[in-house]
Amino acid sequence: MKIAIIYHSETGNTQKVANLIAKGVEKIEGVEAKCMSIDNVDKEFIEDAKAVFFGTPTYAGSYSWQMKKWLDTCKLKLAGKVGCVFATENYLGGGADNAELALLSELLVKGMFVYSVGSSEGKPYTHFGAVCIKDGDEDQKKRVEIFAERVAKNVKKLFNE
Amino acid sequence: MKIAIIYHSETGNTQKVANLIAKGVEKIEGVEAKCMSIDNVDKEFIEDAKAVFFGTPTYAGSYSWQMKKWLDTCKLKLAGKVGCVFATENYLGGGADNAELALLSELLVKGMFVYSVGSSEGKPYTHFGAVCIKDGDEDQKKRVEIFAERVAKNVKKLFNE
Amino acid sequence: MKIAIIYHSETGNTQKVANLIAKGVEKIEGVEAKCMSIDNVDKEFIEDAKAVFFGTPTYAGSYSWQMKKWLDTCKLKLAGKVGCVFATENYLGGGADNAELALLSELLVKGMFVYSVGSSEGKPYTHFGAVCIKDGDEDQKKRVEIFAERVAKNVKKLFNE
Amino acid sequence: MKIAIIYHSETGNTQKVANLIAKGVEKIEGVEAKCMSIDNVDKEFIEDAKAVFFGTPTYAGSYSWQMKKWLDTCKLKLAGKVGCVFATENYLGGGADNAELALLSELLVKGMFVYSVGSSEGKPYTHFGAVCIKDGDEDQKKRVEIFAERVAKNVKKLFNE
Repeated sequence: MKIAIIYHSETGNTQKVANLIAKGVEKIEGVEAKCMSIDNVDKEFIEDAKAVFFGTPTYAGSYSWQMKKWLDTCKLKLAGKVGCVFATENYLGGGADNAELALLSELLVKGMFVYSVGSSEGKPYTHFGAVCIKDGDEDQKKRVEIFAERVAKNVKKLFNE
Repeated sequence: MKIAIIYHSETGNTQKVANLIAKGVEKIEGVEAKCMSIDNVDKEFIEDAKAVFFGTPTYAGSYSWQMKKWLDTCKLKLAGKVGCVFATENYLGGGADNAELALLSELLVKGMFVYSVGSSEGKPYTHFGAVCIKDGDEDQKKRVEIFAERVAKNVKKLFNE
Repeated sequence: MKIAIIYHSETGNTQKVANLIAKGVEKIEGVEAKCMSIDNVDKEFIEDAKAVFFGTPTYAGSYSWQMKKWLDTCKLKLAGKVGCVFATENYLGGGADNAELALLSELLVKGMFVYSVGSSEGKPYTHFGAVCIKDGDEDQKKRVEIFAERVAKNVKKLFNE
Repeated sequence: MKIAIIYHSETGNTQKVANLIAKGVEKIEGVEAKCMSIDNVDKEFIEDAKAVFFGTPTYAGSYSWQMKKWLDTCKLKLAGKVGCVFATENYLGGGADNAELALLSELLVKGMFVYSVGSSEGKPYTHFGAVCIKDGDEDQKKRVEIFAERVAKNVKKLFNE
């Protein structure tokens, strides 16, 4: 089962978190992950994927305009796939939760099944998606991997793969 | 396949829209719907359901505190189910879109796969969920049924039922 | 007292609503309005303005990436001014409420005093800002003007102008 | 100039942050603060206040239903005052940013001038309002006070007090 990870990153922080997401989902047997920048996506991989993660920095309390532009203008068929998010911010209260929810709202419009695990698997909870301050401290990095692994496990179950 | 429809309604408007949702989902063969007020839910039906719709009036630009209280305190296992929403408002710009998105954010925390069809099946689009002004004019009512029918069709496909 | 109206418009709908906002605010004595596209803003006018309206179409349930890009990259000092919004959408439930709230959240980060009148002056209420379906029917157009006039009246009072 | 601080707190965390807000705003000469729980508000003080802070814990990624109930049913005249928020959450990504934005959206409907300082006064930035994990570490507590002090300074300037 393929899982695509699409990110926008200027400083490299969000890209690093994307790599942790890949590491986390590949802990589940049979899952193949691929990270790709919005500047260079692998369309075929995305089309085959059962789930797609979207990662963004937080700009002024929401997701970046580059990610918004990419989503508004991309012609990829995302409907019917599971959509998940992660975000980086520079400090607590920097708006990452809101960036994630805004990004998820765009995925809903694409017809995706939007998913975050939430509090359903016990602690650590992931309310809307993984969050890191800059590229994350050790605890945050660990949470990213746990989040990604749980998503992969449940998406696999959902699609009987 | 069972689909539960849970609503909070003071004036009766949201209850009427709940009935339209039920009518819409039952257009799909093999789907059984049940409407229930937050004051009197059928727990067993909800547990068996593959999808749950939540309907709310718009209070001050968001969903009602009664619905929020019910969700914050309910002990039902909703994780792994598909979650959808609908809302009523008293006039255009009354905040129903925001009420829906706020409600969906709570469903994410519950571990649901949140879904709205969006623009993925052509017009009429349903961005976050069905919206009616009061109990809906003819056009709005028709959209509610189309939305519900599409959700049921795609949830059935998702779960191979 | 100057009030600036900044909009992004592709089809012309949002531009038409911007003109109604200008008409509404100029009903208050001593208020001078100026409409400007994000492609060609009058920086001096904006700097002198006590309030700035931002108008956007709804793209995929939020404000346009062009408006987001403009806000993320503009260097204008907006802090301490009152910030208001308006949005167009193509149909009820098209996400304009959410587009407005997302836009307001960006204005908060700029240090603006964000304002919508809300329900504080009786009907018609304006929850987050004026909303029109396409360029608005007669009722919606009237609401836009009332909203704009009320904002101008209260901003004038706030700044003792 | 009076500034009211209204909070809902179950564990005591949000109450502690309310006290820090009071400490911060009183650093500005001539500012009198008063903290009050939603269960026991001083209506006269609120009516005289130029600004009101609202503090909430984060419940399932949004503000508490108790605060929502209080706001939906309170009859206090808040229009024309400045409205600000703060929130506590149990861990990073717990939804406090979203709780704050949702709370601010309700204040807009009340006719308040919603304000967060944002990035307008340099670091530390406060995107939508102060955020603490539980009752805050030293750095978070310091940010709360700086946020409160900046709000008081700018509200005083706004109202020429």
